[in-house]
Amino acid sequence: MTGEVTELDSPSIVELDEALKKQATISETSPMRLRMEKLIKEHQQKIVEELSRIDGKQFKSDEWTRPNGGGGISCVLQDGNVFEKAGVNVSIVYGELPRPAIEKMRADHKSFVGADVDSLSFFAAGLSLVLHPHNPMAPTVHLNYRYFETTDPKDPINGDKNWWFGGGTDLTPTYLFPEDAKHFHQTIKDACDRHDATYYPKFKAWCDKYFYLPHRRECRGVGGIFFDDLDASFLESSSTSSQNPQETLFSFVSDGLASFLPSYVPIIERRKDMPFTPEQKEWQQLRRGRYVEFNLVYDRGTSFGLRTPNARVESILMSLPRTASWAYMDPVSGTRTEEPDSEEALLNQGKEHEKEIMDVLRHPRQWV
Amino acid sequence: MTGEVTELDSPSIVELDEALKKQATISETSPMRLRMEKLIKEHQQKIVEELSRIDGKQFKSDEWTRPNGGGGISCVLQDGNVFEKAGVNVSIVYGELPRPAIEKMRADHKSFVGADVDSLSFFAAGLSLVLHPHNPMAPTVHLNYRYFETTDPKDPINGDKNWWFGGGTDLTPTYLFPEDAKHFHQTIKDACDRHDATYYPKFKAWCDKYFYLPHRRECRGVGGIFFDDLDASFLESSSTSSQNPQETLFSFVSDGLASFLPSYVPIIERRKDMPFTPEQKEWQQLRRGRYVEFNLVYDRGTSFGLRTPNARVESILMSLPRTASWAYMDPVSGTRTEEPDSEEALLNQGKEHEKEIMDVLRHPRQWV
Repeated sequence: MTGEVTELDSPSIVELDEALKKQATISETSPMRLRMEKLIKEHQQKIVEELSRIDGKQFKSDEWTRPNGGGGISCVLQDGNVFEKAGVNVSIVYGELPRPAIEKMRADHKSFVGADVDSLSFFAAGLSLVLHPHNPMAPTVHLNYRYFETTDPKDPINGDKNWWFGGGTDLTPTYLFPEDAKHFHQTIKDACDRHDATYYPKFKAWCDKYFYLPHRRECRGVGGIFFDDLDASFLESSSTSSQNPQETLFSFVSDGLASFLPSYVPIIERRKDMPFTPEQKEWQQLRRGRYVEFNLVYDRGTSFGLRTPNARVESILMSLPRTASWAYMDPVSGTRTEEPDSEEALLNQGKEHEKEIMDVLRHPRQWV
Repeated sequence: MTGEVTELDSPSIVELDEALKKQATISETSPMRLRMEKLIKEHQQKIVEELSRIDGKQFKSDEWTRPNGGGGISCVLQDGNVFEKAGVNVSIVYGELPRPAIEKMRADHKSFVGADVDSLSFFAAGLSLVLHPHNPMAPTVHLNYRYFETTDPKDPINGDKNWWFGGGTDLTPTYLFPEDAKHFHQTIKDACDRHDATYYPKFKAWCDKYFYLPHRRECRGVGGIFFDDLDASFLESSSTSSQNPQETLFSFVSDGLASFLPSYVPIIERRKDMPFTPEQKEWQQLRRGRYVEFNLVYDRGTSFGLRTPNARVESILMSLPRTASWAYMDPVSGTRTEEPDSEEALLNQGKEHEKEIMDVLRHPRQWV
């Protein structure tokens, strides 16, 4: 996949979509591309409004366009009252996949067929959100929902289409409050269960596996859900029968997005003003360092984004915390091949809460 | 390449080296493996002593062994008087390259031949150093010198041998002092010139190319030298004729290592106690964020190290700064696809020194 867009000979999906947007309002009969764009923009606005209310400070909104179609809106609140850094981004990309990217896509997405052509038009729309609060008692949260589609450039309107949804949300606390983890997971599980009882356990396990730092042998946080490649064949393999798989999955994704504010707002409300010590702030900074390690070393979205020509780097790296810290051989979270010695055991005293979260990160729990 | 070591059928180079170390002192007739180990350990000790003197605080030294041969010494000074974090590491690795790693090695190193076997024993020895001072007027510095060798496991003592040297050193200032950059480059150039007049220009250009963040379109710092794959065929292609290429290159590497303290100590001495403002400290933190981005996203040593089984992660990530910061769309160093607007031009006022270093990072200079 590449961010490069080249001129197409036949009318492209960019042109088609531009025309449709001018002609009528987006409805259930509009192409999924436009419905997804509408959905994520509505949620972006709603989330930004609610977070501004909580913080008391407004987001800075940057709207940008891509040279050959698409664009995005990056909303960032930096150095706020509650949030050190909060980013809520929408991006809409019309592009072209060259041959090697098609092959790569086939390897990554089992469901991906792709016509036997030198290039394929693609469309990608997503909402990405990362919130890093100041208070070390308040957890970082991440959410991403996306829709992807490829279209045969020889027949953009009727050509064979591949599409899938991906997404998820996960919570990264500095200190463990089991009731927060339970509330977060319960809210997401409820949204999943309304669609299919197998979704939550499947996507919860997927999340624990994805947000994992192998070199630290620890999870990034207490998880949530993560999924990708949700398409017609996924539905067939699940217990849900559907006349219209795209519609069925769009409905699931809509509910997932709608569950975000109820899953996080009660948590931030009860943690944002809790008292904390400088030592607790420092522990938060060390945990932020791990967040940076995950995002820069392992996150596919980030590493892919940074290597995409003409990508909007500032929006991709919005996920990084405002500040982070690293320590050599931290006695609680350090990664060693040797056993801790007695000196460390001594240093560990009074670090019960830091040890508690490390235990959860090393051994993911079932929260609901 | 992998960190895994498996038992060999015939006497291994580990066993050979252990025996040699017991029998006699290391001399010019000892295998290069042992001479390189001795050289880097001597320099580690000398550098650590000098840096302790400058800081006033002692390094913490951890000696560790690998299960099947080799080990290392990690010396770290954290939260010192002059240095936020200073790491000086030696590592000695005896391991085995499986078939896919041999193929990868062939692709990375043109000179690499490799016997037609399923696996090859290898040896790697290196000294790595990263110093992050507190004072934003004092630059971060990095150095790495290494030696690599592979041996046919069927005939470890007389078998066909591949070997090469790699290394370099580079300077990363937060604020530009041209006299510092000049002194650093001049000292290295003098060391290079004593061996071959073509080395410095060649290795300076290699350094600017290697320590580059494509997604930010900027260099990590003001450069220095970087080289890899220095072996017999490299010498043939250069103007230096040599009866003993390994000896000739070892002598160059020894001089390179010896030039480190003279290249950096005068700089840290004159910058460590300079006055600075909180804004200048914050600018340093943003630049540290870029250092983290380079090391975690692009540096081959780091990404390779983190993926090596049983690697000592704490020693690899010692290169990360104690603290770092990220800002969305920083008016001076931000990465945008759009042109800066007038509001930004306004914010830019009084940021002459920050703009000055950005200009150097975007357009590498000839310092000597």
